[in-house]
Amino acid sequence: MKDGHGTRTGEVMAAIRSKVSTRALVAGDRLPSIRSFAATMGVSPSTIVEAYDRLAAEGLIRARRGSGFYVAGHGLPPLALSEAEPRRDRAVDPFWVSRQSLDADPAAAKPGCGWLPADWMPHGALRRALRILARAEDSLLADYGGTRGSPALRRLLLGRFAAEGLEIAPDRIMLTGSGTQAIDLICRFLLRPGDTVLVDDPCYFNFRALLRAHQVRIVGVPYTPSGPDVAAFETILSEERPRLYITNSALHNPTGATLSPQAAYRVLNAASAHDLTIVEDDIFADFEPEPSPRLAVLDGLDRVIRIGSFSKTLSASIRCGYIAARADWIECLVDLQVATSFGGPSPVATQLIAGVLAGGGYRKHMEELRQRLARARHEVAIRLEPLGIQPWHMPRGGFYLWCRLPEGRDSAALARAAVEENVVLAPGNVFSVSQTAGSFLRFNVAQSGDPRIISVLGRAMGVHRAA
Amino acid sequence: MKDGHGTRTGEVMAAIRSKVSTRALVAGDRLPSIRSFAATMGVSPSTIVEAYDRLAAEGLIRARRGSGFYVAGHGLPPLALSEAEPRRDRAVDPFWVSRQSLDADPAAAKPGCGWLPADWMPHGALRRALRILARAEDSLLADYGGTRGSPALRRLLLGRFAAEGLEIAPDRIMLTGSGTQAIDLICRFLLRPGDTVLVDDPCYFNFRALLRAHQVRIVGVPYTPSGPDVAAFETILSEERPRLYITNSALHNPTGATLSPQAAYRVLNAASAHDLTIVEDDIFADFEPEPSPRLAVLDGLDRVIRIGSFSKTLSASIRCGYIAARADWIECLVDLQVATSFGGPSPVATQLIAGVLAGGGYRKHMEELRQRLARARHEVAIRLEPLGIQPWHMPRGGFYLWCRLPEGRDSAALARAAVEENVVLAPGNVFSVSQTAGSFLRFNVAQSGDPRIISVLGRAMGVHRAA
Repeated sequence: MKDGHGTRTGEVMAAIRSKVSTRALVAGDRLPSIRSFAATMGVSPSTIVEAYDRLAAEGLIRARRGSGFYVAGHGLPPLALSEAEPRRDRAVDPFWVSRQSLDADPAAAKPGCGWLPADWMPHGALRRALRILARAEDSLLADYGGTRGSPALRRLLLGRFAAEGLEIAPDRIMLTGSGTQAIDLICRFLLRPGDTVLVDDPCYFNFRALLRAHQVRIVGVPYTPSGPDVAAFETILSEERPRLYITNSALHNPTGATLSPQAAYRVLNAASAHDLTIVEDDIFADFEPEPSPRLAVLDGLDRVIRIGSFSKTLSASIRCGYIAARADWIECLVDLQVATSFGGPSPVATQLIAGVLAGGGYRKHMEELRQRLARARHEVAIRLEPLGIQPWHMPRGGFYLWCRLPEGRDSAALARAAVEENVVLAPGNVFSVSQTAGSFLRFNVAQSGDPRIISVLGRAMGVHRAA
Repeated sequence: MKDGHGTRTGEVMAAIRSKVSTRALVAGDRLPSIRSFAATMGVSPSTIVEAYDRLAAEGLIRARRGSGFYVAGHGLPPLALSEAEPRRDRAVDPFWVSRQSLDADPAAAKPGCGWLPADWMPHGALRRALRILARAEDSLLADYGGTRGSPALRRLLLGRFAAEGLEIAPDRIMLTGSGTQAIDLICRFLLRPGDTVLVDDPCYFNFRALLRAHQVRIVGVPYTPSGPDVAAFETILSEERPRLYITNSALHNPTGATLSPQAAYRVLNAASAHDLTIVEDDIFADFEPEPSPRLAVLDGLDRVIRIGSFSKTLSASIRCGYIAARADWIECLVDLQVATSFGGPSPVATQLIAGVLAGGGYRKHMEELRQRLARARHEVAIRLEPLGIQPWHMPRGGFYLWCRLPEGRDSAALARAAVEENVVLAPGNVFSVSQTAGSFLRFNVAQSGDPRIISVLGRAMGVHRAA
């Protein structure tokens, strides 16, 4: 039985051969990991190892040192898919979390990632919008769009803003390639290397990565359950003269906290006294159970710039963001987007998003999401409790739970250990300018249902649980 | 007949009312221009003016000073669509051309734009790819993609490179949001404000806009029908020490010229002697009738970075570009793209592009395009001849014809006059760092079939044509 025919090894080999012959796997594709394929086939990992080794000897697949097995090709080197194999030896910094999450093995548990599971998204509506798009006119499918992006989508956004009490002229809004690109364009427009920028401490980790790319000085203001510590905010504005403050007012990332009306008023007053521009990232707006204060609305978009996207509620695969700001700034930002991206966001993308938003089902989808998240938030808090992991604050909505570890625990060490077991965590210090959040973890409650998470955390912390 | 019932004015009013009641026009939409709707309805412009005025008096539509009529709304101000009404008073610079082209009235003739007409694109294949995508798994429709972008599309690109004799490891390629974003990321990675960057003179106008955003010094090297003037290139490298050279080797934009093997060799040698990095923008590669020398291939992607996109041959609505370079650079560029865009390009976009490219019909589509373009190039040259407008060089392929105007003509003045008649031209100096191309125009032969173009040019130049 040279090729293992009739044995368990032979079954595994036949399964892989069949995937290759039906082109489910093609030259350069990475084979399933030993562990996951063992589970799939109901055999031991050593059986998979033997089967893969035999197939490699036959030349059908090829081993790559430290990165698994690949289907051999026609002179082409196998594609080392970084998305299946992010480098684990890098420093645990904002990029570590982004790349571990974005490039995670599909079988990984990702309580540290910043998005909902794909099956929580409105895929029915997305599929419908795609089928409608397949019948759109040629120009929508093939031409560049206008520099400000889809009029239909901008109109929908203006309607939502008006419902919040923010009535703005249409020349004050533009669409961008993504929410991150919206902030990036604003930074390019307003900042010069060496400027000082204020963020919350903790804040969304990618604000730190983005600002690093702009070579600016980053200062953090301590965040409280009702917004930034206003006294500290005022002192920093006097002493540090920051050019920009970037924040989330509602369902703040990572804490899930909400800006209070009093803090909003004082923040805006201090900003006005010191000529500070504020970028308010409203990406979690639709997750709020009821509306909370917004700097953009209070200020009427004078010194506040509102940005947002559809990645958290609709699709992260279809990229699009927006900027609402002073008309003269929008005019300059449009030029900057033309220079750096040629044109606005993909018309195909904006048409799909406008299709889903206008489709009627979106409001119901958000209603269901909010209820589902409330349940998940409660359940995750209960499951973390026996490990001594406590929420810093119980958010009103959204999908984050910012949690404190038991005394003396280091979340970066925990994250390093967990990633070895295919669990991607978001350790506190990636969110902290002052590096004072080492005992925190951010949990995405929608991605925390996998039982591996609690067991990996328990093992890594050496907690013995009652059977 | 208060509402014009039974008259021509009444017919026009009824047509608009019907568009509003069927929601073909909704609140904020701009009505067709007087001139174009007069042509559509077969009535005089004054009839349209009267009809619009009456509808405005009824409150159904609203006039906006100097920018036409809009459907009135529910408290929302009308959406001033900049794409229908680009500002015409700006300086004639690279942004002028971009914005006039991108935001042109759909009825405009755009011989100055940089893309093919929508009906020349593979819309059948695009529609098919959309219908297939509507049945894709949830994660493709809803999740962020990996940081390097779709493995299938990268694999397709690697296969094409290998066919050119450029066999590179898979860790040397990444996908980006667009071709322009690819160059932008490279500039962010390699350049610092005050650096010197070399471009061809003339060069693609948006290179100038993009480099301006990076606050670098731009130096131009005279371009000849066989590539940059090599002696001048060598002198500039010695004297100016540029950090980067950005060029198109094949079917150079705007001239349509092709780099000769001798020029390629000397450019690469000089770059090596002066430690210059080269970005070779390969966006027109598929339009070549037969392959020509590439710096990226000669050099093996050591000091040359190859970038490209699918906007010219497949769709400009579905945005995606790529970068192929040294592996250590790609690693840094991936981080930069994560920081500034969070993740790679839209998975929905890359899936659509991979679907069309892999679909078999693409090669035939390109074959047909090349033939169609060859005919159009010939026809446009013949039609321009009586106006004394002469090609500087007859390109082997692509869609550009770089033409010299008769003695004493200024292409910027011509472009300003033409845009008033809804014809968007690309005047020479937007392409020229030294501002020495004022007597040139770039024609897109695929967009130059509209008879208005020749008559507007003739009128603007005061040429009397035989009847």
